[in-house]
Amino acid sequence: MPSATNVVDGRAIAAQIQSELAARVASLKQRGVVPGLAFVRVGEDPASKVYVGRKEKACAELGIVSETHVLPEATSEADLLTLIGKLNATAHVHGILVQAPLPKHIRESVVFATVLPTKDVDGFHPVNVGKLMLGDDTGFKPCTPAGVVELLIRSGVKTDGAEVVVLGRGNIVGKPMAAMLCQKGKAANATVTICHSATRDIKAHCRRADIIVAAMGVAEFVKADMVKPGAVIMDVGVNRVPDATSKTGTKLVGDVDFANVQPIAGRITPNPGGVGPMTIAMLLQNTVRAAEQAAS
Amino acid sequence: MPSATNVVDGRAIAAQIQSELAARVASLKQRGVVPGLAFVRVGEDPASKVYVGRKEKACAELGIVSETHVLPEATSEADLLTLIGKLNATAHVHGILVQAPLPKHIRESVVFATVLPTKDVDGFHPVNVGKLMLGDDTGFKPCTPAGVVELLIRSGVKTDGAEVVVLGRGNIVGKPMAAMLCQKGKAANATVTICHSATRDIKAHCRRADIIVAAMGVAEFVKADMVKPGAVIMDVGVNRVPDATSKTGTKLVGDVDFANVQPIAGRITPNPGGVGPMTIAMLLQNTVRAAEQAAS
Repeated sequence: MPSATNVVDGRAIAAQIQSELAARVASLKQRGVVPGLAFVRVGEDPASKVYVGRKEKACAELGIVSETHVLPEATSEADLLTLIGKLNATAHVHGILVQAPLPKHIRESVVFATVLPTKDVDGFHPVNVGKLMLGDDTGFKPCTPAGVVELLIRSGVKTDGAEVVVLGRGNIVGKPMAAMLCQKGKAANATVTICHSATRDIKAHCRRADIIVAAMGVAEFVKADMVKPGAVIMDVGVNRVPDATSKTGTKLVGDVDFANVQPIAGRITPNPGGVGPMTIAMLLQNTVRAAEQAAS
Repeated sequence: MPSATNVVDGRAIAAQIQSELAARVASLKQRGVVPGLAFVRVGEDPASKVYVGRKEKACAELGIVSETHVLPEATSEADLLTLIGKLNATAHVHGILVQAPLPKHIRESVVFATVLPTKDVDGFHPVNVGKLMLGDDTGFKPCTPAGVVELLIRSGVKTDGAEVVVLGRGNIVGKPMAAMLCQKGKAANATVTICHSATRDIKAHCRRADIIVAAMGVAEFVKADMVKPGAVIMDVGVNRVPDATSKTGTKLVGDVDFANVQPIAGRITPNPGGVGPMTIAMLLQNTVRAAEQAAS
């Protein structure tokens, strides 16, 4: 799908990362260690089934052994925590991923804080979030913002001193993204502004940005007149919108009006095929690292 | 010292908070609980001695029992961690404060992560930093940015939708300050930009700000021509500069050129007498809360 030269091919970059990880998996296997990842899914949310399915497939391709625990929608929080406790104590499980969203009667914050930080390959445990914010690289970073950073590095985008606007202040993307890009270090050192629903003039912020990370969850929110020519656009959004031409009557679009923004952007991620594959690549990377750390 | 009507009197606001805390301390004592805070100081850094001394005095005034452990400069990290372990296990110690900076041979990140999160009244443990970032109020917030938020609330500054520029990206003030002000909630919901040494045009960012939090550690960095008339200025800086008129030959100044900025600011904290007393008030508040939680 990426055709124009300014379109960042997330699938190709993710494939490159996965081939690098394959060498690390082979090295682990020579030492008798097979990286293991446990998925936990509660209920039958269709999007969650799709996401977990994709991650299972990526694990299998790389030689990570995965197991998927599916609990009924009515599962109690206590029962879910018991399962996580068992997985925490299982030596061959190096990483644990509890697929969000969870049913309303289960507190996600309690669940994420129960996963052992050393197995928290999603990077959602408070101790890993804290380490991220403190610039301590010993923790796991959340996969989607980590994937955006890798895309920036591998597509040659300089972030040092750049004006970055992060659209969205969610715990999974917006806040960690801002923390990662403002810190000292590689693919960081940027001046970051976090915009959100209460921001008075998002358009003005976007227009002065060298890099926009769109993670608001609003379909095609970023229009061409909000983008400075030459700006780098990272589109994290996944929004289902009506589409009369599709069999299902809907289609997935990002937070960026790609058709109109692409011609003026310096670099832009397509959607799908941009940030999405990177999220999975970063999950695999975290899992391989968790296995390496457990084996060392 | 605060005379002009736009000067925020941090001492008076801190005193008000301490009188509110006095009621909570009295209530604890009725239940047989005396809030206890342990200070740990390593070496003879003059500023650290002054800071710990002020905090000891504030504890005594409020009826918090404090104990101060002074270790020699050459103390090993292991010995310091052993002391922290003992304090973690001591029931009458509800809060532990290890005064920074520590000698170079001791890793602060390891020390801060060893303090029990439930006794981490400085809010530096990764799990408390993570909770802050996740918007989870069950952790302890770092005292200085929490003090700035209280100053904003109690001097009637609206942050909702405001343009905030945080100068500095340190772990103690800049980063947590940005995280606190951008979140949903009371005295938050602002559009936050974090500026630092790599920012291309700090002046332009400052000039568009409704609120500036100056925490760069550069003496009188914020000049009048960097401030939009009517903007709110919170000065966190503490910088020692030469002063021929002083007995010691030096004086302390903030990160803001107060004399020239005060006339055009909407509100401004003096320095000293602004944020500093609030840092201590927030430490007392965290300690009282730690005692309440331990007693419940």
